Amino acid sequence: MIETLAWTGSALRLLDQTKLPRETVYVDITDERQMHDAIRRLVVRGAPAIGVAAAFGVYLGVRNAGTIDALDRVCDYLATSRPTAVNLFWAIDRVKRIGRERGADAILAQAIAMIDEDHRVNRAIGANGLALLDSIADRKSKIGNPVSILTHCNAGGLCSAGFGTALAPVYLGHERGRRFHVYVDETRPLMQGSRITAYELQANDVPATLICDTMTAAVMSQGKVDAVIVGADRIAANGDAANKIGTLGVAILARHFGVPFFVAAPTSTIDAATKTGADIPIEQRDAAEVTRFAGTQTAPEGVNVYNPAFDVTPAALITSIITERGVATPPNAEKIAELLKSPRSS
Amino acid sequence: MIETLAWTGSALRLLDQTKLPRETVYVDITDERQMHDAIRRLVVRGAPAIGVAAAFGVYLGVRNAGTIDALDRVCDYLATSRPTAVNLFWAIDRVKRIGRERGADAILAQAIAMIDEDHRVNRAIGANGLALLDSIADRKSKIGNPVSILTHCNAGGLCSAGFGTALAPVYLGHERGRRFHVYVDETRPLMQGSRITAYELQANDVPATLICDTMTAAVMSQGKVDAVIVGADRIAANGDAANKIGTLGVAILARHFGVPFFVAAPTSTIDAATKTGADIPIEQRDAAEVTRFAGTQTAPEGVNVYNPAFDVTPAALITSIITERGVATPPNAEKIAELLKSPRSS
Repeated sequence: MIETLAWTGSALRLLDQTKLPRETVYVDITDERQMHDAIRRLVVRGAPAIGVAAAFGVYLGVRNAGTIDALDRVCDYLATSRPTAVNLFWAIDRVKRIGRERGADAILAQAIAMIDEDHRVNRAIGANGLALLDSIADRKSKIGNPVSILTHCNAGGLCSAGFGTALAPVYLGHERGRRFHVYVDETRPLMQGSRITAYELQANDVPATLICDTMTAAVMSQGKVDAVIVGADRIAANGDAANKIGTLGVAILARHFGVPFFVAAPTSTIDAATKTGADIPIEQRDAAEVTRFAGTQTAPEGVNVYNPAFDVTPAALITSIITERGVATPPNAEKIAELLKSPRSS
Repeated sequence: MIETLAWTGSALRLLDQTKLPRETVYVDITDERQMHDAIRRLVVRGAPAIGVAAAFGVYLGVRNAGTIDALDRVCDYLATSRPTAVNLFWAIDRVKRIGRERGADAILAQAIAMIDEDHRVNRAIGANGLALLDSIADRKSKIGNPVSILTHCNAGGLCSAGFGTALAPVYLGHERGRRFHVYVDETRPLMQGSRITAYELQANDVPATLICDTMTAAVMSQGKVDAVIVGADRIAANGDAANKIGTLGVAILARHFGVPFFVAAPTSTIDAATKTGADIPIEQRDAAEVTRFAGTQTAPEGVNVYNPAFDVTPAALITSIITERGVATPPNAEKIAELLKSPRSS
């Protein structure tokens, strides 16, 4: 797998995902301002990776200040980088508690441990998801034929430290000799599908077909999709899931065509304090993301634009939520609460 | 309205729509090869405009050959420019018959008459559509508030010689003091929504908001859309409608959210010889439309791409088909046959 982030001993090295697929460039982040900027500009993106990066950002801020007294200020500051992904707040809270009790070095140790933890969590999500895909393959008698997955945005290796979430079942299955074909929605406006998902699937030798977001319905109508798997940026206590803009549309299409729609995410993405999807703050981003592409103007000057970064898929449209601790089918408040009470997978 | 096409006396002057919104450039087409290229490259696009342009292309080919004997060859050649829009074949057949009986000058006279006819047809579609929108406004008690329309691709003035089809009710209503707000899907891959629809709505002072195709579901889920209106490239005898890729998805979302979904098209778009949508040939276009944007690479080299230019929306998902001769609600084989038998509007 391509490395999303790594600790160099003095800095967090990030793959600059804004430059994909044209350039594979790493940047070394050495202070909390750079980290804030990297998260806000999507140099590092994807809920799990944002969490890990933020934990390192807290360490870098405290280290540079030379005093643990900076902890609250650094944490508050980093929490303003993006509003929707709950893993950001979860990770910051976690290292804040540890820092307060045990100091800066303990924050660093925790942040490094979170990389390993992410790997384990990703593999556990992969195993739980793969069991679902295997049962679909059995039901469809797809022996010898690849199972066809559609995904939106990027919840692959580059959204995390490891296998990713939505693509974890695919990568784990690929390791174990299962065959997949992945339809990749390009995911306007920032094209995480074409730029990042298509890139990493190609790098990992998983057969894939890139489509525009306008083509998802056509592909499903032709019976070409066995299952949809997407990630999530925040899951409410009732199972409603915020994810990259366009996910809600894909979920509605999947329901229309009878295609199972799975959300794969670590339990750290579940926010028990958020009752329903209506309570999830949705980040609004710059109009220029829609009116320009790579510096080229694609819409008339002065046009009015609406550019939400996420939408909320109601639990009722989700077949299962796949986590490292198990699967919620169908996702609802009870099933989600059970998952959160169940033991962590090792 | 911005002029889509005009006869100069010796050439057909076309607005080069591939250059919008950055440049407003006209090109003079003087022979059938240039016309074939202009249709294929989408210099001129939209079912009604393609029909008119092809009629002029037939004239130019015969004129340049200096003999009506070239008629069949020129017609056959122009018919290969694009496969889906039936108006192309309808217009070629129409001038072919006239040319055979009455010679080259009669073809030119007919092509010129088709421009005027297109204006009349557009206004009649506008009047029939506006009645539907007025009844929605009444039902929703939108007195004083704009009716909110969502459209996909471009079926406005620039798809025809006049008002267009999908936007005709909006433009006619705008003339008559009705208030509208139009959500414009950008319509990847070729962005006819952001490049063309947003451009012409702005030029005609109709309030509009540009969104990516991924945002349609979010906008509908917020109750922001009162009705969807799109055009069509071919309507089968049973009411199934081929239109720009992504239309099927919008229709499914509209059904999910209880939003009326209208298809507006001249009766020349109805092909009685095409029984159902399954019989409509779907043009596949170059992968580079998906992997590059405005010259910038947006996907990894060598990625597999699926790029159909159109999809088919089944009649069951269409609330009404709006034509210049009346409205088919719900669209089905009987209602469509009735429309085709009804007298032309003057």
